[in-house]
Amino acid sequence: MTLLHPDRLFPPDPATRDVARRLFATIETAPIVSPHGHTDPAWWGENRAFSDAAELFVIPDHYVVRMLVSQGAQFASLGIGQDATTDRRAIWRRFATAYHLFRGTPSRAWIDHALVHVFGIGERLSPDTADDVFDRINEHLQSPEFRPRALYDRFGIEVLATTDSALDDLHHHHAVQDCDWTGRIVPTYRPDAVVDPDYEGFLGNLERFGALTGCDTHRWQGYLEAHWRRRAFFKSMGATATDHGHPTAQTADLSEADASSLYQRLIRGNARPEDPELFRAQMLTEMARMSCEDGLVMQLHAGSHRNHSGLVHRLFGRDRGFDIPTRTDFTNGLKPLLNAVGMDRRLTLILFTLDESTYARELAPLAGAYPSLRLGPPWWFHDSFEGMRRFREMATETAGFYNTVGFNDDTRALCSIPARHDVARRCDCAFLAELVTSHRLDEDEAFDLAPLLAGGLAREAYRLGGR
Amino acid sequence: MTLLHPDRLFPPDPATRDVARRLFATIETAPIVSPHGHTDPAWWGENRAFSDAAELFVIPDHYVVRMLVSQGAQFASLGIGQDATTDRRAIWRRFATAYHLFRGTPSRAWIDHALVHVFGIGERLSPDTADDVFDRINEHLQSPEFRPRALYDRFGIEVLATTDSALDDLHHHHAVQDCDWTGRIVPTYRPDAVVDPDYEGFLGNLERFGALTGCDTHRWQGYLEAHWRRRAFFKSMGATATDHGHPTAQTADLSEADASSLYQRLIRGNARPEDPELFRAQMLTEMARMSCEDGLVMQLHAGSHRNHSGLVHRLFGRDRGFDIPTRTDFTNGLKPLLNAVGMDRRLTLILFTLDESTYARELAPLAGAYPSLRLGPPWWFHDSFEGMRRFREMATETAGFYNTVGFNDDTRALCSIPARHDVARRCDCAFLAELVTSHRLDEDEAFDLAPLLAGGLAREAYRLGGR
Amino acid sequence: MTLLHPDRLFPPDPATRDVARRLFATIETAPIVSPHGHTDPAWWGENRAFSDAAELFVIPDHYVVRMLVSQGAQFASLGIGQDATTDRRAIWRRFATAYHLFRGTPSRAWIDHALVHVFGIGERLSPDTADDVFDRINEHLQSPEFRPRALYDRFGIEVLATTDSALDDLHHHHAVQDCDWTGRIVPTYRPDAVVDPDYEGFLGNLERFGALTGCDTHRWQGYLEAHWRRRAFFKSMGATATDHGHPTAQTADLSEADASSLYQRLIRGNARPEDPELFRAQMLTEMARMSCEDGLVMQLHAGSHRNHSGLVHRLFGRDRGFDIPTRTDFTNGLKPLLNAVGMDRRLTLILFTLDESTYARELAPLAGAYPSLRLGPPWWFHDSFEGMRRFREMATETAGFYNTVGFNDDTRALCSIPARHDVARRCDCAFLAELVTSHRLDEDEAFDLAPLLAGGLAREAYRLGGR
Repeated sequence: MTLLHPDRLFPPDPATRDVARRLFATIETAPIVSPHGHTDPAWWGENRAFSDAAELFVIPDHYVVRMLVSQGAQFASLGIGQDATTDRRAIWRRFATAYHLFRGTPSRAWIDHALVHVFGIGERLSPDTADDVFDRINEHLQSPEFRPRALYDRFGIEVLATTDSALDDLHHHHAVQDCDWTGRIVPTYRPDAVVDPDYEGFLGNLERFGALTGCDTHRWQGYLEAHWRRRAFFKSMGATATDHGHPTAQTADLSEADASSLYQRLIRGNARPEDPELFRAQMLTEMARMSCEDGLVMQLHAGSHRNHSGLVHRLFGRDRGFDIPTRTDFTNGLKPLLNAVGMDRRLTLILFTLDESTYARELAPLAGAYPSLRLGPPWWFHDSFEGMRRFREMATETAGFYNTVGFNDDTRALCSIPARHDVARRCDCAFLAELVTSHRLDEDEAFDLAPLLAGGLAREAYRLGGR
Repeated sequence: MTLLHPDRLFPPDPATRDVARRLFATIETAPIVSPHGHTDPAWWGENRAFSDAAELFVIPDHYVVRMLVSQGAQFASLGIGQDATTDRRAIWRRFATAYHLFRGTPSRAWIDHALVHVFGIGERLSPDTADDVFDRINEHLQSPEFRPRALYDRFGIEVLATTDSALDDLHHHHAVQDCDWTGRIVPTYRPDAVVDPDYEGFLGNLERFGALTGCDTHRWQGYLEAHWRRRAFFKSMGATATDHGHPTAQTADLSEADASSLYQRLIRGNARPEDPELFRAQMLTEMARMSCEDGLVMQLHAGSHRNHSGLVHRLFGRDRGFDIPTRTDFTNGLKPLLNAVGMDRRLTLILFTLDESTYARELAPLAGAYPSLRLGPPWWFHDSFEGMRRFREMATETAGFYNTVGFNDDTRALCSIPARHDVARRCDCAFLAELVTSHRLDEDEAFDLAPLLAGGLAREAYRLGGR
Repeated sequence: MTLLHPDRLFPPDPATRDVARRLFATIETAPIVSPHGHTDPAWWGENRAFSDAAELFVIPDHYVVRMLVSQGAQFASLGIGQDATTDRRAIWRRFATAYHLFRGTPSRAWIDHALVHVFGIGERLSPDTADDVFDRINEHLQSPEFRPRALYDRFGIEVLATTDSALDDLHHHHAVQDCDWTGRIVPTYRPDAVVDPDYEGFLGNLERFGALTGCDTHRWQGYLEAHWRRRAFFKSMGATATDHGHPTAQTADLSEADASSLYQRLIRGNARPEDPELFRAQMLTEMARMSCEDGLVMQLHAGSHRNHSGLVHRLFGRDRGFDIPTRTDFTNGLKPLLNAVGMDRRLTLILFTLDESTYARELAPLAGAYPSLRLGPPWWFHDSFEGMRRFREMATETAGFYNTVGFNDDTRALCSIPARHDVARRCDCAFLAELVTSHRLDEDEAFDLAPLLAGGLAREAYRLGGR
C-alpha cells in the first residue's frame, strides 16, 4: 500500500500496462497547459499565502462539501454560512473523519496527489493523522514556496486561463502583467451576467456594462457594441477565448429586428416567459459571429441546472455542490448557430456536456463534420478515470482525436491542478495503450498522439501559441 | 465445463482475479439481507410445498416467460391464460427446449445456480435432461426441506421484506409472527392502489381505504390521515420502508388548498387530463413528509411503462414481461420534493431507475449532494453482470459507495434469491478488485467495503438494525 | 508494426485472446451474408471498372469526407460540388496527407483492410506513399479481377441486398438476373420518397407511384394498393425485406376514415403542421400490416436528423456526412404499431437506432418480449469496435443473442464489405470469449453461437434461405 502507486490508472494486463508506462514516461513532466479553469485571479495578482489546510482543501471545494453534506454534515461544521464554525482545525478533523466517503472518487485521488506532491505527506488522511497533517500543511503554507506564484512555477504550468465576468476590470491580471513574475495568466471573457436575463441583477449589470464601455446598452446595437469593446479589452489583456455557461444548448438566429424587439422586451420588463431562453439562444449566435471576426475561441458549457436546492442557495450561496446536470439536446439546439456560422473556418466552438449520452449520439457526429466544432474534455462530474474512459470510448471512433482539445483542469482548487493533469495523462495513456495492444493503433502513432493529448491540442485549439 | 465455475464473474486478469477471489471469500456466506422484494407472503405465512418445477421456475417468472414469448412461444403453452395447458411436464419441456435462448442472460445464471445449489443438479438443462430434472425437482419439492421457511433458513436469510398493498391486512405476516419459526419477514407499505388515479379500481380502493382506517377518505385531510394510520399499522408489523412504483419521477408541492381541490376533482370524476400525474407527484411529497415523521424509509421505483401491450394485458394480466422502461427525468422531477424535504436528515429516499443514462447525469449528482437521497442498486433489467458494472462505473465517482444501499434481490422467484445475491457479491468484488489493481483503492479499503456492499449498507439504509 | 495484425480487436488477456482466436478461426472465411446495404445496383447490373482510387475510397464515402471537412478541408478539394477539382491524384494526396485524422476510427480499419486484402498494399498510407498507392490501385482497377462482380465473388458474398426506391424499375436487378453471373443481388423496398411528406418532390412522387402501378394515388385506398403492387413486384425480383428511414420511431394506428382524411389533407396542400409526422407514423403501421400478409421483413432505421447543415445540403447535396443523430423514443413511439400487430408471429420488424441509450432501456426490453421484434446490429456511427461492444453489453442480458440478427455492413463503399464483416466477426468473438473466460457462457455454447452471429441469424431473420 502506497498513497500514490506509480502504475495507478494503468490497465492491469501486463502487456498493455507496459505500453501505458512507456507512453506516460514521455509526457509525465510535460508543461501544463490550462486553458480553462476557475482559479481566483487575486491569487495571481496578490500572491498572498493561504491561511490553512481547511481553507485550501475543504471550504471552497464544492466536490468535497457536497459529499460531506450528502452524508449528513452540516454546512456550519464545514465553515460555511452564518453561524459557521471558525475553528479551522475542527473543520479539518470533520473532513478527515469522513475521508472514507471519498473512496473511489476523483476527489480522493486529487487530494492524495496534492498531499504527496505538494506537501510531501505520505500517509493516508484519517482521524488519527488529521492533526499532524493539518499542522504540517499549515507550516508549509507560511513559507514563500507555497504562495500561488511559486506553486504555479513548481507545477510547471506554461499558461493558465482564469474565467472572468464581462464586467470585471481585470485588475489582478494587470498586476500580474505589471510585475516581474514570468507566469502567464490570461483572462477569459465570460459574459453570463449580461447575457442571461435570469442572472441575479441582470438589468443593473446592463447599466454597468454600458457605463464601462461608453455604449448605449438601452439599444440592441449599443449592447452588441459593448460586447465588441469588452472582448477587445479582454483580448488586449491576453484572452484567447470566451466561455458561456448556459442551462441548455439552445441557439437562435433571429432577424435584427426580432432580436432588437426581444432585447427591448427584456430591458423594459415586459418579457414573455420564453424570452430569457430565446435571448440566451440568440446571444450564443451573436457571440459566435463576433468570434469569427475577433478570433476569440468560444466555449459552451451547457446543461447544468444551477442551485437545484433553493434552501442551500438561499442560505449558503452559489457553488456549494448543488448544481445538477440535465439532459441536453445539441443536435437541435445548435442548429441555428451552426447554420449561421458553423461552416466558417475562422470559428472554433468548443463544446462541453454533462450529458454523456450525447457523446456518441450528438457531439462526436457534430464535431466530426462541422469545421468550427471541437469537443472539450469530460466536464465536472465526468473529470475522472471512468468519465475520461467513457469519453474516449464514445467520442473517438466518430470524431477522432484531432477534433478534441486535450485536457482542462477546470478547477478552483489550486493544488489539484497537477493532480488532475496527472490523472488525464494517465487515462489517455491507458486508452492509447489499449488501442495499441488490441491493434487498433500502431505504437508509433500512440507516441505521436500522447503529447498532443497532454498539451498540443489544447495549445492549438485555444490559439495559445508556443511549441 | 462446469455448471457453476468457482471463478464466475471475476475478471480474467490473473492479478485482479486473485484480489476478487480473496474479497469474495470474506462475504460469500454472509447472511442475506433482502430489504426489497416480491415473494408471496402466503409462502411464509402458510409454508406449503410448491407443486412442481414449472410452477417454481417458469409460469410466474416474467423474465422467463417474456423471453420464450419473444421467440414465438404461445402463452398457453406456458400454462398462462384461458385455454392454457395444465400439463406441467409439457411446460417444462417447452422451457428446456428453449433453454439456449437464455445464453448470456441473468435468467440463465440464476436458474443454473438454483439447480445446483437448491436441487443438487449438476448438468445443463436441455431437451435431453428435461424429464429427469423435472422429476428430481418435483421429488425434492415434496420433502419438508424444500418448503419456503426451510429454504429461507437454508439460504441464510437474515431478514426479508415483502411488498404489500396499503389495503392488505397482512394476515400472512401475522401468521409468521404468531408461529415459532424465527425467520424475519417484514412488510413494506406500497400504496400505489390508493395513490395512483390510473390504478384499476382507484375509487373503490379509496372507499376500502376509508373503511379500513375509519377515516373520511372523501376529504383530503381524511385521506392523508388514512395513510398515517396504515403506515403506523405496517410499522407495528415490522415494516421499515415504503415503496412507490410510479411511471415518472415527477413530484409536486402544492398548497393544501390546491392539493385538496385536486383530490376533490379526482374523487368526483371531473379530473383534468393532467390531474392523475399531478396527484401522483403530490403524493410522493406527502409520503416524504410522513417519512420525516414516522421514520419509514421511502423507495421510489420510477420509469416503467406498465402493460405496454394492451393485448397481453387484456388476455394474460399484469406482470407478464411486457413492462417497458422509458426515459426518466429525476433532476427536474424530484425538485419540488427535494425543495420541500430534501435537506431533512430524518428522510431517507432511495431512488431506482430503468434509465441508465441518469446514473452519472442525474442520480449520482443528486445523491452526492442531498443528505436524504441514496441510490438503490441496479433495478430489473439491469440486475445483471453488465448492469451492475455500469452502475458502479457510472455512479461511484460522483456518489461514492456510501450513498448506495447494497443489493436488493427484488424477486418473486424464491430460488433465485441466493443466486442473485451471489451475482451481486461477485460483481462488487470484481469491481473492487479492479479498483485495487488499478490503484484507485487500497486493498485494506476494499476488504472494508466488501461486507458493507454485501449487507451492511442495506441494514443501515433500510434501518433494519442488527450487526 | 504490421498494417493488419492477426490478433486485432481481440482482448489483451492471453486466456481470453486464445478463446477469441479459436472462435474466429471457425468463422473467418464463412460466406458473407449482406441483407442490408447501399451498394449501387449499377455496379452489379453493368459491372464497369472503377476509374481510380479517389472515386473508390474518397469522394463517395461520407465517413471520409466529413472527417476531412471537419478538419478544414474544402469540399472542392475533395472533388465535390461545383468548381470541384477534377484532379483525382490531388484528391488522393489531400486524403493521404490527412490520414492521421482517422487514427482510432473505423474508417482507418476499413481502408487498411481494403488496401491489404483487395489491393495487396502492406504499408500505411501517408504523404510519402500516396502516389505509389494511387498508381497501384488504379492499375489494379483496370483489370477484370477488380470489377464489381469479380470482387463480389472474391469477397465470398453469399447474398447482397441493395436499397431501392419504391419508384425504381429495378432494371439493374433485371440485368443481373438475365446474365449468367451467379451472384445473388436482391432489392429492398424503401418507400421513403412516397411515404414521407417532407421528402423532395413528394407530390410528384405520388403521381409517378400511381402511374407505375395503375392505381389511383389520389385516394387513400388507391395509394395503399400501389404499395401492395410495388411490394409484390419487389418480391418477385427477389426482395425479402422493406426498409424505412424515419426521423423518429413514432407510429400511429388511425381509423381508416382518419387515415384517409389525413392523406387528403396532405395531397391537397392543406396539411396541418403535425400531419407529415402523423402520416409517416401511420404508414409504419400500414407497412407492418402488409408485412404480415406478404411476408416481407420490415426494417426501421429511426433517429437521423438528415442534412443538418442547410448550407452543405444546398451546395453539395445529400449524404455528405452532415446527418446527425437525435434522441429517439421507441417505447412510446412504437406502441400503436405494436398494439396493432406486435404479437403477430408472421411479422418480423428489425429495429435500428442511433441513440445507444435506448439499447438497454427500450430496445432490448421490447425485443425481449414482442415476438415480432428483432434488434438490428449497431448502425452507422456505432458500426465499430466500441460501438459493437456497447451493443452486445447493453442488449444481450435482456434480449439474448437470438433476438438479434447478426451483422449488416450497410455500406456504399464496396471494398469495405469484407473489412466490416471482419470487424464484426472479431468483435463478436471477443465478446463471446469474454463471456467464456468470465464463465458466463460455456465454451461449446460460444462455438455454437459464433456462426449464428456471423451469418445464421441474418439468414433466418431476413428469410434469405440457405444453409
